[in-house]
Amino acid sequence: MKKLLGIDLGGTTVKFAILTEEGELQQQWNIDTDISEEGNNIVPTILDSIKERFNLYGLSSEDFLGIGMGSPGSVDIENGTVIGAYNLNWRTLQPVKQQMEAALGIPFFLDNDANVAALGEQWKGAGDGNSNVVLITLGTGVGGGIVSEGNLVHGISAAGEVGHLNVDPTGYACTCGNVGCLETVASATGVVRLAKDFAEEYAGDSELKALIDDGQEVTAKTVFDQAKAEDPLAKIVVDKFYFYLGLASANIANILHPNTIVIGGGVSAAGEMLIKGVEAYFQKYAFPPIKTTTKIKLAELGNTAGVIGAASLVKLYS
Amino acid sequence: MKKLLGIDLGGTTVKFAILTEEGELQQQWNIDTDISEEGNNIVPTILDSIKERFNLYGLSSEDFLGIGMGSPGSVDIENGTVIGAYNLNWRTLQPVKQQMEAALGIPFFLDNDANVAALGEQWKGAGDGNSNVVLITLGTGVGGGIVSEGNLVHGISAAGEVGHLNVDPTGYACTCGNVGCLETVASATGVVRLAKDFAEEYAGDSELKALIDDGQEVTAKTVFDQAKAEDPLAKIVVDKFYFYLGLASANIANILHPNTIVIGGGVSAAGEMLIKGVEAYFQKYAFPPIKTTTKIKLAELGNTAGVIGAASLVKLYS
Repeated sequence: MKKLLGIDLGGTTVKFAILTEEGELQQQWNIDTDISEEGNNIVPTILDSIKERFNLYGLSSEDFLGIGMGSPGSVDIENGTVIGAYNLNWRTLQPVKQQMEAALGIPFFLDNDANVAALGEQWKGAGDGNSNVVLITLGTGVGGGIVSEGNLVHGISAAGEVGHLNVDPTGYACTCGNVGCLETVASATGVVRLAKDFAEEYAGDSELKALIDDGQEVTAKTVFDQAKAEDPLAKIVVDKFYFYLGLASANIANILHPNTIVIGGGVSAAGEMLIKGVEAYFQKYAFPPIKTTTKIKLAELGNTAGVIGAASLVKLYS
Repeated sequence: MKKLLGIDLGGTTVKFAILTEEGELQQQWNIDTDISEEGNNIVPTILDSIKERFNLYGLSSEDFLGIGMGSPGSVDIENGTVIGAYNLNWRTLQPVKQQMEAALGIPFFLDNDANVAALGEQWKGAGDGNSNVVLITLGTGVGGGIVSEGNLVHGISAAGEVGHLNVDPTGYACTCGNVGCLETVASATGVVRLAKDFAEEYAGDSELKALIDDGQEVTAKTVFDQAKAEDPLAKIVVDKFYFYLGLASANIANILHPNTIVIGGGVSAAGEMLIKGVEAYFQKYAFPPIKTTTKIKLAELGNTAGVIGAASLVKLYS
């Protein structure tokens, strides 16, 4: 049986994994991303690393069904090209598929990093292999990906932009130019923004308020830790966060009726408390037949979602 | 070349159409829906009508690639059954596919009426054959259907419930048990509800207010006609309607990035004025790359969307 190679290309690290066709992880390794010289070294260093590992493990191109890769930037799935991946210094069109296939002779498939992570969680993570899974990633920004009836949803190109769902038409200005996007209140910086805003109006005793007033560094983790410790201001802040994320999750489910909405990214480290909080508002705003059938779950694969999802692109597109 | 037969099963009328595989309408006819005897006459009268028309046009089962049907109620697509279609008196499980195929020997495909209408508009209506089209139908209720990469999206079963998108967490109670659903403000009765609520607070001169205060019958059409005639209260009401529908359309597009969002149903008779109003709020809340690429358009097929979409089920599923 042939193997799959998954690559998760990020701004600081390139992650690699070799998997069986069933998705069993056999080998994993990382290299630093070399973004010097306008990113011209990225593909060559990836190729060198693959060849080195093939030697090490006694593998050759014939052992592989294909290679899948998740990339930041605008990905052209048909042509296997990337453009505008600024954290890679890839400003101009990069013919990644052509370069990879020419060098290795293995079929190569490309999609964007958010979609690939969703595919990973759907296949081997919290999605449990169900056909309809949505991933919401709460990190520096809020991103996501949609698997519907087993396939990634792209629409024209930008489907799955759940970070820009409007959750408050009178809300905060977003970097995208709109107001009230989910990202403004549910990203790591969004949670801190909520905390600072509520702290201004809050009059009672609160350690969180004391930290903020004292000018100390407050992160999303601080806010959730304080909420766990029953700090009254922190509880107000996380409740508002739960409201926004629960409302967005309900509206996603009212459109797609997925088996599972998976919540991942750094902010989701708050864990089951977060899921319980979001679920309460989800129950309030999801259509009744959907309330009882769509599950909200924590992501399970962490940093491995990308390589696993990338590998599964081979099965999806070949 | 073989033909397609599309059937749109409704509570008062069954619509039929014979189409070429390319979707050219060749014959169309209707019969009354016989919902007597717990709906047991529905399939036999449909079969009689098909056989009669086959005789009339000199056609036989061999001339057909397949039959597609849209039905109200809960449709099991795999098994071709319907349950809980109360306007048909179909309370128990109806093995429609089995009955139809046994009698005619033509492959038969079933989906729900909202999905089938979406497929019709996508194939031959405002969707222009694009792969990613969402239909929002504004009638007694608000319904919809989603075509993504050429396929109907079902999710677990209830995908496309756009009438129950939450557009106002502090909004009106909905028949579904939630509050603030799009249906509470964008259905025919929703528009009238908005008009009556705004009329209570409105102090200036307004013919719409006079009609409402006088206890006259006010419909969605009255409200839009008054808005066209520059009635100041009516303009406030339709602007609120545009806000809700524009916000919902933007959130649908932020998730799916469709080529087109098609707006149909009785309330959409307000025409291009409505599209322009909705578009203004869509531009405000859609993610920037989506604003410039997703189009909002009026439905084009009217009552024919159902039979055309039903016929195209044959191409989709066979």
